[in-house]
Amino acid sequence: MTHVYFDHNATTVLDSQVMQAMLPFMAAQQGNATSRHAYGRTARDAIEQARAQIASAVGAHPSQVVLTSSGTEANNFAINGMTAKQPNTQIAISAIEHPCVMRPAEMLQSHGFKLAKVDVNAQCKLDFENLESVLRNPTSLVSVMLANNETGAIQEIAHVAELAKKNGAYTHTDAVQAFGKIPVNFADLNVNAMTISSHKIHGPLGAGALILDKRVDMTPFMLGGGQEKGLRSGTENVAAIVGFGIASELAVKNLTSHAQKTQQLRTQLEAGLHELGATIFAENTKRLPNTSFFGFNNVEGETLVMALDKKGFAVASGSACSSDSTEPSHVLLAMGIAPDLARGAIRVSLDANNTSEQVNQFLLVLKQVLNQLKQMVAMAA
Amino acid sequence: MTHVYFDHNATTVLDSQVMQAMLPFMAAQQGNATSRHAYGRTARDAIEQARAQIASAVGAHPSQVVLTSSGTEANNFAINGMTAKQPNTQIAISAIEHPCVMRPAEMLQSHGFKLAKVDVNAQCKLDFENLESVLRNPTSLVSVMLANNETGAIQEIAHVAELAKKNGAYTHTDAVQAFGKIPVNFADLNVNAMTISSHKIHGPLGAGALILDKRVDMTPFMLGGGQEKGLRSGTENVAAIVGFGIASELAVKNLTSHAQKTQQLRTQLEAGLHELGATIFAENTKRLPNTSFFGFNNVEGETLVMALDKKGFAVASGSACSSDSTEPSHVLLAMGIAPDLARGAIRVSLDANNTSEQVNQFLLVLKQVLNQLKQMVAMAA
Repeated sequence: MTHVYFDHNATTVLDSQVMQAMLPFMAAQQGNATSRHAYGRTARDAIEQARAQIASAVGAHPSQVVLTSSGTEANNFAINGMTAKQPNTQIAISAIEHPCVMRPAEMLQSHGFKLAKVDVNAQCKLDFENLESVLRNPTSLVSVMLANNETGAIQEIAHVAELAKKNGAYTHTDAVQAFGKIPVNFADLNVNAMTISSHKIHGPLGAGALILDKRVDMTPFMLGGGQEKGLRSGTENVAAIVGFGIASELAVKNLTSHAQKTQQLRTQLEAGLHELGATIFAENTKRLPNTSFFGFNNVEGETLVMALDKKGFAVASGSACSSDSTEPSHVLLAMGIAPDLARGAIRVSLDANNTSEQVNQFLLVLKQVLNQLKQMVAMAA
Repeated sequence: MTHVYFDHNATTVLDSQVMQAMLPFMAAQQGNATSRHAYGRTARDAIEQARAQIASAVGAHPSQVVLTSSGTEANNFAINGMTAKQPNTQIAISAIEHPCVMRPAEMLQSHGFKLAKVDVNAQCKLDFENLESVLRNPTSLVSVMLANNETGAIQEIAHVAELAKKNGAYTHTDAVQAFGKIPVNFADLNVNAMTISSHKIHGPLGAGALILDKRVDMTPFMLGGGQEKGLRSGTENVAAIVGFGIASELAVKNLTSHAQKTQQLRTQLEAGLHELGATIFAENTKRLPNTSFFGFNNVEGETLVMALDKKGFAVASGSACSSDSTEPSHVLLAMGIAPDLARGAIRVSLDANNTSEQVNQFLLVLKQVLNQLKQMVAMAA
């Protein structure tokens, strides 16, 4: 059976160059990077080199890179850390944020914050009128993701930041899905903080970063030995950080060719999907080149994912991080998609290592599976 | 030049068997463990196998293992998570806790908690009379480390837990330094939560765990996709968790032989240290077999660490995690050691891969270095 991985927004394979760069830091005695002896200094130097690579890849200064264990951690850190010392008690997020922004923001409500969820339209684009209206209340933080993990829709973050700044609020953007797929430049986005993650760009699991404007009066996320200038304590995961550095470099180097390749494959995919009668979500907005989120009426997304898996194709229903849940995607509901269609949504997220042949096979198998499901429904009726 | 690593309480080398177990999860496409397709299920199975290995190694049930990115994270999680829903507003910790317990506990003071630091005696043993006195105030959480990272002193945690329970408080123990060096059994310790870390037991960086009694009404540490039963969101670091599982198994398998070997080396080391006039801290208490913390009058610990490093020996001054600081060790100050002697403290932490020859060489080099430093002091006088 073929095994085709079409779930690159969930996680990617480790690049072999990245792995080669990591291995020396796994194979021999390493120091704790806080230690002052030669072993410790070697680890420290490797971390600082990776920090510079990461910074360079996203248009930031190395001193703006706060290393974390993941994108989830960086998002939790941003939401909690950027609000704790602010006088204003409203936070504003888009209605389509990843749960690791949404849930910490919701939790702040029990600490006296008011949470405003800014609307998106049917094409998954932020409603700027709604944002402006929300910002009439004094706001400490606005957090809007650069690209959505499910639909791939890309937001005008520099505009969000401009409005937030005018109203005295900080801006954070979750750029986890954007980084490596479209150009991401911290300075151009004009935000105060930005989250990125290693394992979405062919780097290792276990590394992420919050790119942080040093003027933000931030509370630390983990306390202890005082690593990351006291903002994020804990012994640094040297091999993962080294891998994240190399992966960041490669992400920038390969950006254009990978975007072209995945966009071609997606065009091929979506032509076939249209023939099969699919609704493609956020189709008419600026999207990540690799992402296609679609659904069929009267077909359960979960059922489709399992049926495709049996045929050797790995795709997602909604975001992987919420696929334990059977609720329809909150992103689609925010876009005003009917719950029945939303429940049928599945996501294909491509990578440059996928092929046109795989897409063709997928379309054939999808057609078979859909016919089988329709027959089952007809028999049950 | 020889390069001898005597800083195993800071971090250890990755065991080659552990690395071999990790490599398959780095070399090929892996799924996000939350994904429902075959790639995701393979990752999930690997995580659950590792969870069972970790649980078995510390006398816990797999369902009690909450995976984190590090010991620091698990300690922050315990201190914050175990107190948030408790009615009592005092927390009690020992005066010798690692900063990743001490600092979160201190931070809770700004959230209305009263912090009691329980004394230790000159041999680094917890003062139970002081603990009993502290517990007369209604207390939500008592956190005392099983073995101290600097002196290696081992505390009677089951007794701490007994007193805490009698007074309606939860008990947490930081067992990061104990695990792999002495037997650690969650059930026998009778605590509600216990922290362990992978990279201290020849496992990879990037993995730790809070072993947690499920009856504790706990607040989550990171919010998002709902991993780890909602207590710790974030895509699981599969390779690191797999490594932690194997390392935990090996830690138990090798415990007795490693303890015997390091204890022999330490006996040899300390005989030589006595000849050189060293004060060995907590010498007359039950200590980890591999740890020797000592000082010389009128010698700066930092200076000694740097001089020994130049001669090829990696040792620590106080804990690695606080070695950016030039303050004397808070552990030694809590023991009543004079600040001048405390400032001169250095730590040798051995491993079974160290040799008797290395210890001999170290003692020779230490003698030379001490003589040089004395001459410099004499010339400056």
